[in-house]
Amino acid sequence: MKGFKFSGISAGIKADDAMDLGIIYSERPARAAALFTQNQVVAPPVILGRERIKTGLCQAIVVNSGNANCFTGAKGLADAEKTAELAGKALGIAPELVMVSSTGVIGAPLPMEKIEQGVPELVRTMNSDGTEAFATAILTTDLTAKVSTRRCSVKGGEFTITGVAKGSGMIKPNMATMLAFVVTDLDIPTTLLQACLKKACDRSFNRISVDGDTSTNDSVFALANGMSQAVLEDSDDSLEFQRLLDEVLLDLSEKIVKDGEGATKLVKITVKGAKTPEDALKVAETVAQSNLVKTAIYGEDPNWGRIVAAAGRSGALVEPEKLDLKFGDVALVKAGEWQGKDAEKEAAGIMKGDEIELTLDLNIGEYGDWYLFCDFSENYVKINADYRS
Amino acid sequence: MKGFKFSGISAGIKADDAMDLGIIYSERPARAAALFTQNQVVAPPVILGRERIKTGLCQAIVVNSGNANCFTGAKGLADAEKTAELAGKALGIAPELVMVSSTGVIGAPLPMEKIEQGVPELVRTMNSDGTEAFATAILTTDLTAKVSTRRCSVKGGEFTITGVAKGSGMIKPNMATMLAFVVTDLDIPTTLLQACLKKACDRSFNRISVDGDTSTNDSVFALANGMSQAVLEDSDDSLEFQRLLDEVLLDLSEKIVKDGEGATKLVKITVKGAKTPEDALKVAETVAQSNLVKTAIYGEDPNWGRIVAAAGRSGALVEPEKLDLKFGDVALVKAGEWQGKDAEKEAAGIMKGDEIELTLDLNIGEYGDWYLFCDFSENYVKINADYRS
Repeated sequence: MKGFKFSGISAGIKADDAMDLGIIYSERPARAAALFTQNQVVAPPVILGRERIKTGLCQAIVVNSGNANCFTGAKGLADAEKTAELAGKALGIAPELVMVSSTGVIGAPLPMEKIEQGVPELVRTMNSDGTEAFATAILTTDLTAKVSTRRCSVKGGEFTITGVAKGSGMIKPNMATMLAFVVTDLDIPTTLLQACLKKACDRSFNRISVDGDTSTNDSVFALANGMSQAVLEDSDDSLEFQRLLDEVLLDLSEKIVKDGEGATKLVKITVKGAKTPEDALKVAETVAQSNLVKTAIYGEDPNWGRIVAAAGRSGALVEPEKLDLKFGDVALVKAGEWQGKDAEKEAAGIMKGDEIELTLDLNIGEYGDWYLFCDFSENYVKINADYRS
Repeated sequence: MKGFKFSGISAGIKADDAMDLGIIYSERPARAAALFTQNQVVAPPVILGRERIKTGLCQAIVVNSGNANCFTGAKGLADAEKTAELAGKALGIAPELVMVSSTGVIGAPLPMEKIEQGVPELVRTMNSDGTEAFATAILTTDLTAKVSTRRCSVKGGEFTITGVAKGSGMIKPNMATMLAFVVTDLDIPTTLLQACLKKACDRSFNRISVDGDTSTNDSVFALANGMSQAVLEDSDDSLEFQRLLDEVLLDLSEKIVKDGEGATKLVKITVKGAKTPEDALKVAETVAQSNLVKTAIYGEDPNWGRIVAAAGRSGALVEPEKLDLKFGDVALVKAGEWQGKDAEKEAAGIMKGDEIELTLDLNIGEYGDWYLFCDFSENYVKINADYRS
């Protein structure tokens, strides 16, 4: 990856000595695209980001974890601007070229003295191999850092895409996940970058759910600094870029769901045969968000009754006597009928895996969709009952 | 209560010797009203009930727990009809005057030999004091029987209303709760009974959530046998009946939420100042169903950030800088601003109670609504991970 540097440090924002401040820096201003949460309660970093992205340029992003700087009023917005200003000064670039992102507890003021102290060290430790440090510094309840990289050549030359994301609660993104950052050294126009990012998000972050709550800070940024010299020469090249971006974002999405709060299993529900595309998505989304489905999966129970009940309440057109439902490749329900104890036993075997594929065919149309989700364990409750204490 | 008899027995449908078969019987055919689930996957008892309620008459309702007789195809419908036929025969009345309801596991065939054996005993043990036995026989994961009674006099005379309900998972009713039965010895026209029942449900069962899942078997029945001789003479009397019915159903709703799977606290969220009635309901419903809000309440954490975040993603118009939020009578957020550590400490005290009132004023309109819900504990996960095993 040419011309990008990363860093992550402990600035004392979190109570323990955990890393909590990160930066992405491009040696020259990069073309920038972004998508933000659709929650109407948005954090100041999102307000600032929405404004600054209009220029289509960005050279650095400063991210803190441990504090979402959300619901912090006028002071919160001033703090976000101040953070960008501090970074701009340390980097010797215009503060308008700096974006900020925050994740963590909602409602507490950002400890600016700690950020002020931390920024110089953050800038000093930047290097081209700092991706892992950056990915670690942006985590909250996540257990693992989430990085995904693809290298590729198009007619114009070789380039790299690297994505970094964090989960792992309040995850039912609407436009973007909690926080994700994609950088590439490709030379690509801003409008195309934005369009590709939107498409890729619809096929990744907008198809995952940990707990059905959409965050106030959801943001995904894409920076392209063109330093690889690779350019997209024709529509085949554009398709290739889209394919790669899709792969990176989908890989990050899987990592987020696998590391969902308390999650023990990664589940994909594929819906087929819906009357409309909207119906297909409704069914997939409702199954993915049903607490009863999620607890049954945690209990390794092929509880198909809860899955068809969720489909039935989704608002989509469903004809119960036409439903086919598979656990992995085991057909447990055919044309609305349970296939008996042997099939159930086989399905129970499938449920013991770490990754489970469910396929629900409504058999009344030609549209399909899917969702990635995780199961629901006692640990989710523990994590979220104790989060602020 | 004149002219109604009840009974509950153990017929061996559940694995242990728990009670699992109940009956309500009216000495003469009662005027009947009912509301059923809006889930598109509906159980055969609901299919049968929708058909039979058209006559506006009902003399007996047979209810089994331990098996929902849902997703059981043509055999399931035949089994529901057969159950009504067996009861009709034992009671010496037309089978068309018998309704059936089932609750329990979805997808397993109803054990008809056990129902056939049980019905004669069920009929033999009926008596006017059998409400508690009936209320116990219809429970699944519920911990307590749920009965509510009101006595009243109108100009036409005295009458009684008794309601019985069961919860306690797959509770986010849409038209009616899991199962509820209301009987009165009042003389009331069927159309008025139906209208009153609909209104009362909108103010009770349609405002509660345990886990956001709408059941396939939700049904609420109201029977009025007129045996008290009391009649409604004018609109004041009708209002009085409505008031009483509201009270009974609201009381049952509270009992259902308190006994929600794994619940430790009963919470009421009241929304005020919304731009439209729909917005008020959306906000109340979204807060009531947020897993993050529910786990925070379990942890006795006045996590107002999660409440405003839920409001923000509800789809309703929300202006963050105008929000007021109270825990009990403690104003923790005013005009979008956190009121500091002392207020937070007081709010934390409120969270230690068994019953918690939250009031969220959007301050942008004049409409309000509310929802009753419970917290979310590790026990909910345990109960639902192990339900079928």
